[in-house]
Amino acid sequence: MAAAKPENLSLVVHGPGDLRLENYPIPEPGPNEVLLKMHSVGICGSDVHYWQHGRIGDFVVKKPMVLGHEASGTVVKVGSLVKHLKPGDRVAIEPGAPREADEFCKIGRYNLSPTIFFCATPPDDGNLCRFYKHNANFCYKLPDNVTFEEGALIEPLSVGIHACRRAGVTLGHRVFVCGAGPIGLVSLLVAKAMGASQVVVTVSQFERNFCSTLDLSASRLSKAKEVGADFLLQISTESPQEIANKVEGLLGCKPEVTIECTGVETSIQAGIYATQSGGTLVLVGLGSEMTSVPLVHAATREVDIKGVFRYCNTWPMAISMLASKSVNVKPLVTHRFPLEKALEAFETSKKGLGLKVMIKCDPKDQNP
Amino acid sequence: MAAAKPENLSLVVHGPGDLRLENYPIPEPGPNEVLLKMHSVGICGSDVHYWQHGRIGDFVVKKPMVLGHEASGTVVKVGSLVKHLKPGDRVAIEPGAPREADEFCKIGRYNLSPTIFFCATPPDDGNLCRFYKHNANFCYKLPDNVTFEEGALIEPLSVGIHACRRAGVTLGHRVFVCGAGPIGLVSLLVAKAMGASQVVVTVSQFERNFCSTLDLSASRLSKAKEVGADFLLQISTESPQEIANKVEGLLGCKPEVTIECTGVETSIQAGIYATQSGGTLVLVGLGSEMTSVPLVHAATREVDIKGVFRYCNTWPMAISMLASKSVNVKPLVTHRFPLEKALEAFETSKKGLGLKVMIKCDPKDQNP
Amino acid sequence: MAAAKPENLSLVVHGPGDLRLENYPIPEPGPNEVLLKMHSVGICGSDVHYWQHGRIGDFVVKKPMVLGHEASGTVVKVGSLVKHLKPGDRVAIEPGAPREADEFCKIGRYNLSPTIFFCATPPDDGNLCRFYKHNANFCYKLPDNVTFEEGALIEPLSVGIHACRRAGVTLGHRVFVCGAGPIGLVSLLVAKAMGASQVVVTVSQFERNFCSTLDLSASRLSKAKEVGADFLLQISTESPQEIANKVEGLLGCKPEVTIECTGVETSIQAGIYATQSGGTLVLVGLGSEMTSVPLVHAATREVDIKGVFRYCNTWPMAISMLASKSVNVKPLVTHRFPLEKALEAFETSKKGLGLKVMIKCDPKDQNP
Amino acid sequence: MAAAKPENLSLVVHGPGDLRLENYPIPEPGPNEVLLKMHSVGICGSDVHYWQHGRIGDFVVKKPMVLGHEASGTVVKVGSLVKHLKPGDRVAIEPGAPREADEFCKIGRYNLSPTIFFCATPPDDGNLCRFYKHNANFCYKLPDNVTFEEGALIEPLSVGIHACRRAGVTLGHRVFVCGAGPIGLVSLLVAKAMGASQVVVTVSQFERNFCSTLDLSASRLSKAKEVGADFLLQISTESPQEIANKVEGLLGCKPEVTIECTGVETSIQAGIYATQSGGTLVLVGLGSEMTSVPLVHAATREVDIKGVFRYCNTWPMAISMLASKSVNVKPLVTHRFPLEKALEAFETSKKGLGLKVMIKCDPKDQNP
Repeated sequence: MAAAKPENLSLVVHGPGDLRLENYPIPEPGPNEVLLKMHSVGICGSDVHYWQHGRIGDFVVKKPMVLGHEASGTVVKVGSLVKHLKPGDRVAIEPGAPREADEFCKIGRYNLSPTIFFCATPPDDGNLCRFYKHNANFCYKLPDNVTFEEGALIEPLSVGIHACRRAGVTLGHRVFVCGAGPIGLVSLLVAKAMGASQVVVTVSQFERNFCSTLDLSASRLSKAKEVGADFLLQISTESPQEIANKVEGLLGCKPEVTIECTGVETSIQAGIYATQSGGTLVLVGLGSEMTSVPLVHAATREVDIKGVFRYCNTWPMAISMLASKSVNVKPLVTHRFPLEKALEAFETSKKGLGLKVMIKCDPKDQNP
Repeated sequence: MAAAKPENLSLVVHGPGDLRLENYPIPEPGPNEVLLKMHSVGICGSDVHYWQHGRIGDFVVKKPMVLGHEASGTVVKVGSLVKHLKPGDRVAIEPGAPREADEFCKIGRYNLSPTIFFCATPPDDGNLCRFYKHNANFCYKLPDNVTFEEGALIEPLSVGIHACRRAGVTLGHRVFVCGAGPIGLVSLLVAKAMGASQVVVTVSQFERNFCSTLDLSASRLSKAKEVGADFLLQISTESPQEIANKVEGLLGCKPEVTIECTGVETSIQAGIYATQSGGTLVLVGLGSEMTSVPLVHAATREVDIKGVFRYCNTWPMAISMLASKSVNVKPLVTHRFPLEKALEAFETSKKGLGLKVMIKCDPKDQNP
Repeated sequence: MAAAKPENLSLVVHGPGDLRLENYPIPEPGPNEVLLKMHSVGICGSDVHYWQHGRIGDFVVKKPMVLGHEASGTVVKVGSLVKHLKPGDRVAIEPGAPREADEFCKIGRYNLSPTIFFCATPPDDGNLCRFYKHNANFCYKLPDNVTFEEGALIEPLSVGIHACRRAGVTLGHRVFVCGAGPIGLVSLLVAKAMGASQVVVTVSQFERNFCSTLDLSASRLSKAKEVGADFLLQISTESPQEIANKVEGLLGCKPEVTIECTGVETSIQAGIYATQSGGTLVLVGLGSEMTSVPLVHAATREVDIKGVFRYCNTWPMAISMLASKSVNVKPLVTHRFPLEKALEAFETSKKGLGLKVMIKCDPKDQNP
Repeated sequence: MAAAKPENLSLVVHGPGDLRLENYPIPEPGPNEVLLKMHSVGICGSDVHYWQHGRIGDFVVKKPMVLGHEASGTVVKVGSLVKHLKPGDRVAIEPGAPREADEFCKIGRYNLSPTIFFCATPPDDGNLCRFYKHNANFCYKLPDNVTFEEGALIEPLSVGIHACRRAGVTLGHRVFVCGAGPIGLVSLLVAKAMGASQVVVTVSQFERNFCSTLDLSASRLSKAKEVGADFLLQISTESPQEIANKVEGLLGCKPEVTIECTGVETSIQAGIYATQSGGTLVLVGLGSEMTSVPLVHAATREVDIKGVFRYCNTWPMAISMLASKSVNVKPLVTHRFPLEKALEAFETSKKGLGLKVMIKCDPKDQNP
């Protein structure tokens, strides 16, 4: 890599509060890899968190790391063994690519593989840069009628798909989504696409979303309405039981599924009280290490509690949905910045202005 | 019953070709039953079949039987133990109501209960009449924004729900529906509602649908298009492999799911060839007793073959979907006749004119 | 009932600490019921709890209630509609019998039906008596080679079946069972019968089992060994993480499934830490209303947390297993008392002497 | 490879009827591979078939191919990236190792991957030789208490595991196994290990098993009995319905699961008639391309028909079961030959003498 020309502008976090635009060499793809010219990369709450705190839990930024993992781009070079892609192909990038066929991979739950490569999780570099190489099997060709930004949004959409799939959302379900940040909204979008008949979305001033630090805003409520929420519920000082009662009141029955996207303890508790006996509460938002919950209430009503760790097997179905116009993720993007203004973009995201901030990495094509 | 006044006009089949409008006594509901004033009852292919042949397989009309099982009406009287319904409630009727809590019922597959009561399957009377009593637990309250005809159409819709559910249709699936009769169309509607991204529907001149004797018509193709088919395929002399190839060509890949609604041997064979490895072929249409199929081809690609027998646990989700306007079944109704003209209605259905013929049982309300 | 002769000795709880042997009239079976001459009834921790405290959570003994729900007996009279049983049939009794076909029943999860009849849960009478009537569909004929006591033990065995089934225990699984009371042991038995290759069982001095108030004892450890535990772990002051580490050390890997039967907070925490990523923790034991748990740890490793409420659809498979001698529940019975000495039996159970105390209700046959 | 010394005796099929022992070079393992000194390799019916016919369906021996895929051996050299194995480790070999992370692999069904490497399926070489290299992730360390022959038998055992798992065999199930060849017997073994209470095994003179050309023999019946069959049924001229009736008579009810291991048309038909409504028929045996089956009978009783193609995710659970002595596969081995006498071994296998013929590849260790 030393010989490569420094023509690859990259956004690099060096430690807490230390974010820099630097020139990196253009990488050379291995036999099973492709080199991509990056086009659109969304900013995720985790990117902001690494910048602000230099770590998320046990994942610590110990050496400079390129940020970014919600991404799409164009193939410019393919490795010797790559058959399904060729230069010029527009692709969406699945940021997690297993390094070895361990037992989690073999059973189809590769997201649980402890040795997986994952963009912008230390120590693995992300793709907020001009040129990036990736495992070709985890790059998915975009149809002509799917934009690069839609391709980049498959990443947050995948969290919603994985959550709804683990919840078993199906035809006619009533769904309670806690939180109206990007993850709450993609969960809403996916639940409706999987046949949910009615979805309640809550917004709380105490919300702290893993993928968003945004605080309460009327814009979130209106955005939730815009993308399909049947009912909105603004939470202030209600107790968990009161929230549960309000949800039941709106739907006319308890929801079969609750998707908790805030990580706030009272919201998790509300999710348990709210969910129908025999239903499922999916934990997407992450809060503090220990959480106090009414487990007996959940257990004796057989409300299953399931977490999600990232996602697996979502890109093909997401592309299929986007190509057929069955879901519309476009309203999620509220801001765009060229890569050169990435620091400004991160400031915008940190302030919680808007919903999804998109960084445009191709100086010659800043279109969606 | 002898003492009751003969004020209950009913459509009764006495044997092959012998269909009569007769006056029956108004029944008295038992403790767990409700008496219903019937409103809308759709004609199913099986009704026509009992009229024409006096039997379907082992089910033989040995004594006069009231026809009709796609129905909705209004509660006029409730049994002593009924709590969830009251006079005036508008309800959709699930025609199959288990007589006892046998092992099939206990595991939630009550449709397989050998002693189940089922409207208009000998010897059980159906509900093509003015007044009808039914197990109250199998009458479902209709929301104000769901019409009686939508309520009656839940019955065919349920076949589609049960088929798609057993197929495991989910987000992004490509689905191949063989046959564009009422059952093909409800399967299409449900597949889309469950998240299928693209659906191919075939029409064949050799089609023989259990619930329809209609032959090929351009109106079917246009109806399939109207209710959401992405691709239409008119079959004439193609071999099963050729049909499979055409389906793959249209979708760009093999479908994960095939729903076979014709019962025609070549169509079943096409379903096996067409379905993706690891996918599912659901048999809804019924053909001759023995069928010649490429089982090795199915087995070595792990294409599962599953049949459906009626349905179970579909009314609540169907009502939920209709209330939220997530599916639109209204275009399925092409003809309406008052109960007094039921014989004419059956002639229309037999000729295959249109799609779903609806009989209006309430002389004072012939609205949808 | 007033006219019936007082020849039905019954064990009745009147309130906290107030347990009496009384003569009740012999009941008359309804059309779908059978009258049973009771033979063997096991004492469950909940029976002892109602006697000691007059309530379990929201279930309060407000009027005298016959105790007992782990039972078997002989049919002496059948209702007019009963076809599958006749006088002389030996049967095991499923204590929960739904009162109506509500939506939980229809989907096969009748244990969640809010109106279910359940023996010895207020206000429903149990079967610690000479003669008892029950829904015939929830009485299961015992083969000749299954004893009455085995029949009575199907009830606790069912808890183990339901727990292991919800956990998805299958071939080659490593299972961690917390608690060596009756429920821990039946979970162990069932896990092995379902193919678990290795099971670790813990005993703790802090254990408080819903179905047992027994404290730590060496006899429990030896009993666990006797019925098939591969490893035993005696817990004293270890932290949850330390327990998890010990379990992993014994098995050579983390268990795919943990069945928590104590309800103790630290044990639930240990269950979360111990379970393999992608595995399942089943909560059988019930503790205090709110529990502090490492939810983020569970969620990010996709360890599902599922409770069980009683059981459903377990009697037929339990009888099948007992008849084929695939499980041996006989070692669970450590004490026997005739019904006349029921108060002494309850004292024995309360003291935690032995494992399962069996009450013999038939004065002419006190055999197992 | 040209430089390697010809010290690797290998059994090579050159075409129909042309089987030779030849010296091959010792291969060099790649970065993710291990080199193995082979110990025990079982002869499968497919090996015999390639020798006799030079092809199985579309798989044609076009160039010399080493046979053998039921194998175990010792690691003698590891590739640069291999971490979980070291020289001296005893391992069982999973013969199918995916070449790329395609969509089938990603969802955990890698057996369906069209580009998978599979030992002794043209054009991929097998491991009936002295030294063999294999993907290290598909070599599984054997515990000390599991013999090499048990390790080799994991391959046929895996077929039984995959079949029973796809059938959903669980506690208390009654299972009907058609065929008493090696695959019938491993299906029996696995069904019992998964909790089946009773298993009926049939033997027919018309049996033609994919993995065995053995004809009817009393030794098969006694072997089936030895490894756990509850009932044996010798088929001669019975019709499919008669066979189904006999199975029901023996079990006292219809089996929930049928595992068809012969591929014979009448046996498949019997499987459909015999299986309980709502149950599953798994097709393991492969017959002729087109099969005539009572599909309407299967469909209207919701008897699912599922095939199996090899297996996936079975080695870890098989090793777990063998280590805990939960299944005993040792009785399956009836003959042993040193590699030098491989031709004699194949003649023995072809004649159908015994059940499983094991070839011992290590001249210094011919132990089990």
